[in-house]
Amino acid sequence: MDAIYFVSMGSLLGIIFAWVMFLRVKKQPEGTSEMARISEAVRKGANAYLKRQYSGVAIFFIAVFCILLIMAFNGFLSFFTPFAFLTGGFFSGLSGFIGMRTATMANCRTAEGASKSLNKGLQVAFSAGSVMGFTVVGLGLLDLSIWYFILNAAFQHLPVEQRITEITANMLTFGMGASSMALFARVGGGIFTKAADVGADLVGKVEAGIPEDDPRNPAVIADNVGDNVGDVAGMGADLYESYVGSIVSTAALAVAAGYGVKGVSIPMLLAALGVVASVIGTFFVKTEEGASQKNLLKALRTGTYISAAIIVVAAYFIIKMMLPGHMGLYAAVLSGLIAGVLIGAITEYYTSDTYSPTKKLAESSETGAATVIISGLSLGMLSTVAPVIIVSISVLVSYYCSGGANDFNLGLYGIGLSAVGMLSTLGITLATDAYGPIADNAGGIAEMTHMDASVRQRTDALDSLGNTTAATGKGFAIGSAALTALALIASYVDKVHQIQPDLNLDLTITNPKVLVGLFIGGVLPFLFAALTMEAVGKAAQSIVLEVRRQFKTIAGIMEGKAEPDYASCVDMCTKSAQKLMIAPAMIAVIIPIVIGLLLGPEGVCALLAGNTVTGFVLAVMMANSGGAWDNAKKYIEQGAHDGKGSSQHKAAVVGDTVGDPFKDTSGPSINILIKLTSMVSIVFASLVLAFHLL
Amino acid sequence: MDAIYFVSMGSLLGIIFAWVMFLRVKKQPEGTSEMARISEAVRKGANAYLKRQYSGVAIFFIAVFCILLIMAFNGFLSFFTPFAFLTGGFFSGLSGFIGMRTATMANCRTAEGASKSLNKGLQVAFSAGSVMGFTVVGLGLLDLSIWYFILNAAFQHLPVEQRITEITANMLTFGMGASSMALFARVGGGIFTKAADVGADLVGKVEAGIPEDDPRNPAVIADNVGDNVGDVAGMGADLYESYVGSIVSTAALAVAAGYGVKGVSIPMLLAALGVVASVIGTFFVKTEEGASQKNLLKALRTGTYISAAIIVVAAYFIIKMMLPGHMGLYAAVLSGLIAGVLIGAITEYYTSDTYSPTKKLAESSETGAATVIISGLSLGMLSTVAPVIIVSISVLVSYYCSGGANDFNLGLYGIGLSAVGMLSTLGITLATDAYGPIADNAGGIAEMTHMDASVRQRTDALDSLGNTTAATGKGFAIGSAALTALALIASYVDKVHQIQPDLNLDLTITNPKVLVGLFIGGVLPFLFAALTMEAVGKAAQSIVLEVRRQFKTIAGIMEGKAEPDYASCVDMCTKSAQKLMIAPAMIAVIIPIVIGLLLGPEGVCALLAGNTVTGFVLAVMMANSGGAWDNAKKYIEQGAHDGKGSSQHKAAVVGDTVGDPFKDTSGPSINILIKLTSMVSIVFASLVLAFHLL
Repeated sequence: MDAIYFVSMGSLLGIIFAWVMFLRVKKQPEGTSEMARISEAVRKGANAYLKRQYSGVAIFFIAVFCILLIMAFNGFLSFFTPFAFLTGGFFSGLSGFIGMRTATMANCRTAEGASKSLNKGLQVAFSAGSVMGFTVVGLGLLDLSIWYFILNAAFQHLPVEQRITEITANMLTFGMGASSMALFARVGGGIFTKAADVGADLVGKVEAGIPEDDPRNPAVIADNVGDNVGDVAGMGADLYESYVGSIVSTAALAVAAGYGVKGVSIPMLLAALGVVASVIGTFFVKTEEGASQKNLLKALRTGTYISAAIIVVAAYFIIKMMLPGHMGLYAAVLSGLIAGVLIGAITEYYTSDTYSPTKKLAESSETGAATVIISGLSLGMLSTVAPVIIVSISVLVSYYCSGGANDFNLGLYGIGLSAVGMLSTLGITLATDAYGPIADNAGGIAEMTHMDASVRQRTDALDSLGNTTAATGKGFAIGSAALTALALIASYVDKVHQIQPDLNLDLTITNPKVLVGLFIGGVLPFLFAALTMEAVGKAAQSIVLEVRRQFKTIAGIMEGKAEPDYASCVDMCTKSAQKLMIAPAMIAVIIPIVIGLLLGPEGVCALLAGNTVTGFVLAVMMANSGGAWDNAKKYIEQGAHDGKGSSQHKAAVVGDTVGDPFKDTSGPSINILIKLTSMVSIVFASLVLAFHLL
Repeated sequence: MDAIYFVSMGSLLGIIFAWVMFLRVKKQPEGTSEMARISEAVRKGANAYLKRQYSGVAIFFIAVFCILLIMAFNGFLSFFTPFAFLTGGFFSGLSGFIGMRTATMANCRTAEGASKSLNKGLQVAFSAGSVMGFTVVGLGLLDLSIWYFILNAAFQHLPVEQRITEITANMLTFGMGASSMALFARVGGGIFTKAADVGADLVGKVEAGIPEDDPRNPAVIADNVGDNVGDVAGMGADLYESYVGSIVSTAALAVAAGYGVKGVSIPMLLAALGVVASVIGTFFVKTEEGASQKNLLKALRTGTYISAAIIVVAAYFIIKMMLPGHMGLYAAVLSGLIAGVLIGAITEYYTSDTYSPTKKLAESSETGAATVIISGLSLGMLSTVAPVIIVSISVLVSYYCSGGANDFNLGLYGIGLSAVGMLSTLGITLATDAYGPIADNAGGIAEMTHMDASVRQRTDALDSLGNTTAATGKGFAIGSAALTALALIASYVDKVHQIQPDLNLDLTITNPKVLVGLFIGGVLPFLFAALTMEAVGKAAQSIVLEVRRQFKTIAGIMEGKAEPDYASCVDMCTKSAQKLMIAPAMIAVIIPIVIGLLLGPEGVCALLAGNTVTGFVLAVMMANSGGAWDNAKKYIEQGAHDGKGSSQHKAAVVGDTVGDPFKDTSGPSINILIKLTSMVSIVFASLVLAFHLL
């Protein structure tokens, strides 16, 4: 398959570009020694966290590796799977680490850049975000390339079409490693970041009345560390997983549809060319001094849209070259891309203060915190309708345009391609997303080192824009998660039929196993959200108590004469996150296996369906409620409804605090949950089936 | 079918018993003239509301009646359906009206009774609750009996087994009238009651710092009216619908299973004997003066448990007599009863302040309103797991014990019987549930008329207990809604197969129509919850502004010298509720038809499945979060965490306010949503199928 050479080159391009960007960021000046010192503290905290997280996760990986190895010895899996599981986890974790490393290096440099000009600040932050974006796609394609060559060599004795079948079947199981790592990164990082944030806000802003990012707040460094381990490293691992998952599941569906080499080549080429398109797009991201926020947004948008336009053209030729008889597949790719853009736009509509929903939410602060919460929750719930309809239309379009009416395997392949289409320009969309927390951190450093007000103003402009791009990015992440999950469910069905060709997996809705599977699948995201929110609550409460303790016991802390003990807060967050991430993560891994053993493959199908549907809706709701609360608060801080310090502002702060775990812990973790359950089901399918045939 | 005579007698017994109870309440003294005056004001407000609601709903009923009539003329329905639709709506509305009428009569009498002794207060309130409970079952069975006799006469020319098939097929469509009325009652009543409650609390308690039920608050009468139109009339209509729905769908499933007359007789006899058992149970509800809250609860529990025990014994003999070869059906009935009790117990565990979840929730008030909200939401989400597992086990047990492994129709019949089992003692469970708001109202009257503190203490004891029984009742309502919805889905499948015997309704999970149906079904409860919560928010904000206006413009109002304009608040609530209930109600009716036309019957199946699963989980979550917030606040008011007026208390009040629409508007309305969508699908099945065969 020649396409793999393009994939290798795409991988190389991504990694080299990320490296160039990394060097570009690195050679920027760090600013004053005080700035460097704070940046160092954040970096140390983030490193310590990741180190602890990875060593904890290593135990999990070793345990699962052993289980998979035993399964392989007993013929339930190929021997490649356990090792592929490890590399998936390794590269996912590495993506997160590199992104985080760059972000913690870039924060003071962005602040220093912003002290010169807005454009300079944007360039540094965006370059750092690009490192993350291109590392993810570069490493993702690297993993695919390496395994392709290994598997190709291993199955060399087979004729080419049969070989590609073996290769894709084996590659499909990669995802579980990446998914598992992503889950830990998202959940652990999410707990850390929000425990620190909520804890810092509750005592600092609400009780002591000191501003955000005030250096007198003992949790302020932990808060900044959290932005890096949660919003950067966690998100990187998350999207790494969607990216790889969508490609390998589409490849498997291509084989099922009977279009081995050529069908597999299409998603590969799309991904490879997506890297090129993204690199080109980044050159268009620049702005001039005095640019309004609108212009800043335009700068970022231009880059993204140019990349998308390139892919739109390239996809046409790729499909024309590979499967000219199936140009309907082109509609599938387009529908995915368009759905991604539309969900992003909807997300922005519901969460940006330039539109009425968030304005109305801010208005509800006039009648107190309770109405802010009620309005925010109903805003979030309402905002789920449009994305569901968009995904639904995208699914129908992809399926039927690809020829699903005549051959359902082709239709499913189309759905897979729509996910790949949505994610093909991930390099740049992730860059625009990851730059947000970097600008946020830069603002924190500017605040802590008492830099000129104009600097803070510039970083604020960058940060506020970051909130919008982050919202768009989250919309993308959720949309692609839904489509990828659907492709994975289809792959699961295909996998089961490979093992047991005559098994009927149709879900008779009146079959109680199906009903029960649906119910358990439907409750899973709620359980997961409950556990992660509770974890944030618990961890935050311990931070609140610690901050209060320091305010009381460290003399001169409020006058800025004595330095608070930042490290203790970082350490507490780290420990809490490590401990509290275990339960939710285990649930995602164990439940699909248990249900498989109890209810059989039709129960698992129903479980995955229920889980994907409820998970998607709940994730959108939590992300959008959280985003809207955040921006409603910012809107009031800009002077609406009596502005900062008013009772309206206090009510909005309550909303924002509730929204924190919504949008940065539970919501995004559910994205991974819905994919990981499918991945686990695929990997353990043979075991579950063997048990049921006993 | 001889069983129908028992049903008629059961109906008669229920109605007579309700009448006797009504007279017993009526002959109690009303108390002082001031008490009578307030009670009169509440009654007038409630009457005005119901009158307006029913005239609004009448338009809907006439419109749907005409549509059904046109369908009947074109051969899509039998001519009985439009009329059955009307009687279902009429009796459901009548149940609500009688319950509300009794409750508004009983409030001052309960307060007066409580001024004599605790037992006297309990007796009056419970008797009034019994009127509601027995009216619902009496009228429900009356509707069934009347139609049975009419249909039996109409199909007299057919042999008996064929006749019963026609009868049950026609009866199945009754439910839509009852469901529609229930939806309007729940949504409209729910908006009214919570708009008034939230509005009154936000200005009265939070801003002006006057206690609850203070006569100086202009929204106080509206608040009391709300308890009656929402918690009493709305709940009555809701459970009327579950009750009738479970019986008619089980009857239809009996015919599908091939056990015509005898199979239909079992649910009928269970319902009829359930009335007898409930009547007997009520005689055991009494307590002595100085009884602790625990003893009060025991008094109510004793009645419920005795009724349940009678049914446990009776069910054995009924099944033994009717289908002695299928004693497994007995397990189905038992599993339903046990599931109901267990879900009630779980609900109590999560929402009562005697257990750790609510205590921990109260503790989270130490760190402010935001953590109260986060903890409450995660408590609610966590509380969904056990009910899902209980319902799942109940479904599996009913299905397989009834012989589903060999004949799936028998298994489905078993699931239907489990729902009937759960609801058979509705007479008394509803009585213990409906008595809560009556005691609540009595407390309000005691407060407003400055009665002795001991009276308020007694009504508080009754009310607080009412919260527990209401929680249990809500658990029952949700559990039975889930089982009834499943039975209705099975009936839908059966209905489609009657029209098109060769249609394959298996849901291939990779069929995009199925995926889209699941997604749309899954998002529906969120949309519904969003609209109803938004409605409460909107209506409450208008009340807030009105109360503030009165506080400002009516001189001497805060000193108690001038009387506030109560009527204007009642009127505003009425108008808002009427206007805002239309959109959510229309969605429930229209979406299943639209999806049917777009995606065909397999899409509808998926829609119903997604809707039932997500709806069940969301409804449990909202009910339990709300209940726990309410009780955490009460717990603090009793002195925990620095008690009333503390910052912790203020934080808990925010939770309680958010919980109001959760537990009394959106949550319970979703129960009806999941049944109404199935009902609509059944009634319009022939039209949808005809469209698809065009």
